[in-house]
Amino acid sequence: MIEPFDDTYFMKKALQEAEIAFEKGEIPVGAVIVIDNRIIARGHNLTETLTDVTAHAEMQAITAAANFLGGKYLKGCTLFVTLEPCQMCAGALYWSQIDKIVFGARDKDRGCINLKTKLHPKTKIEGGILEDEASALLKRFFIVKRNLN
Amino acid sequence: MIEPFDDTYFMKKALQEAEIAFEKGEIPVGAVIVIDNRIIARGHNLTETLTDVTAHAEMQAITAAANFLGGKYLKGCTLFVTLEPCQMCAGALYWSQIDKIVFGARDKDRGCINLKTKLHPKTKIEGGILEDEASALLKRFFIVKRNLN
Repeated sequence: MIEPFDDTYFMKKALQEAEIAFEKGEIPVGAVIVIDNRIIARGHNLTETLTDVTAHAEMQAITAAANFLGGKYLKGCTLFVTLEPCQMCAGALYWSQIDKIVFGARDKDRGCINLKTKLHPKTKIEGGILEDEASALLKRFFIVKRNLN
Repeated sequence: MIEPFDDTYFMKKALQEAEIAFEKGEIPVGAVIVIDNRIIARGHNLTETLTDVTAHAEMQAITAAANFLGGKYLKGCTLFVTLEPCQMCAGALYWSQIDKIVFGARDKDRGCINLKTKLHPKTKIEGGILEDEASALLKRFFIVKRNLN
């Protein structure tokens, strides 16, 4: 049987969120949270719009998913995010006990892998899904921003 | 000249926030953010009330302080928090570029020091202010909770 709902499908949905951030002048990072092949939460970076360093795509998606589920633990859920989570977001994901994190582009300087942020023992993490698309969007954003300044 | 506004004074204000959390049935952690000896933001743990793992005292205080200042960077600010920040909160404080973090009780298992969460190079961190009071409040909470179950 053909399964249309794969990692690429959901990462495209996260990329759509990243594009919304881009159009708002935000660093383009987007996220969706999925349970049983169903998107229950979306988020995109809004740190500039909300003047709030905590307003990362993942943080908003975590809050929205818990709100949808009526419980603060994201058991059975997978987060798809276009950029490797930072320490803050990985720390929030630790508390959420989420099943799986799937990210697009690596963030070698500020990402949770090189900074060794502790994840919950139940949480699996995987990267590189549509990495080129996520990176290209980020690069395009910084080129546009440089040209505007 | 006598300076009434010292670390102990502001940590007592953070402890008052922790007591509010306690009364709401939340793990009692409280925080205030101070600039020029003036409290510009308060927060207490609301993870149960809001069904949201991200609703730590520090996260709410960071968001409130940025809102007060009209800018997302907390330059010139000090956070007083009754318990050593976790990875999530320390990660948020990294992004905020806050000047100083003063905490009460240590959290050896889930705190940012032993988990080596990266802070901004400008940020100083200091612990142990009213540590006994903060620890006693946490212990009392868990005793009450155990007896209720």
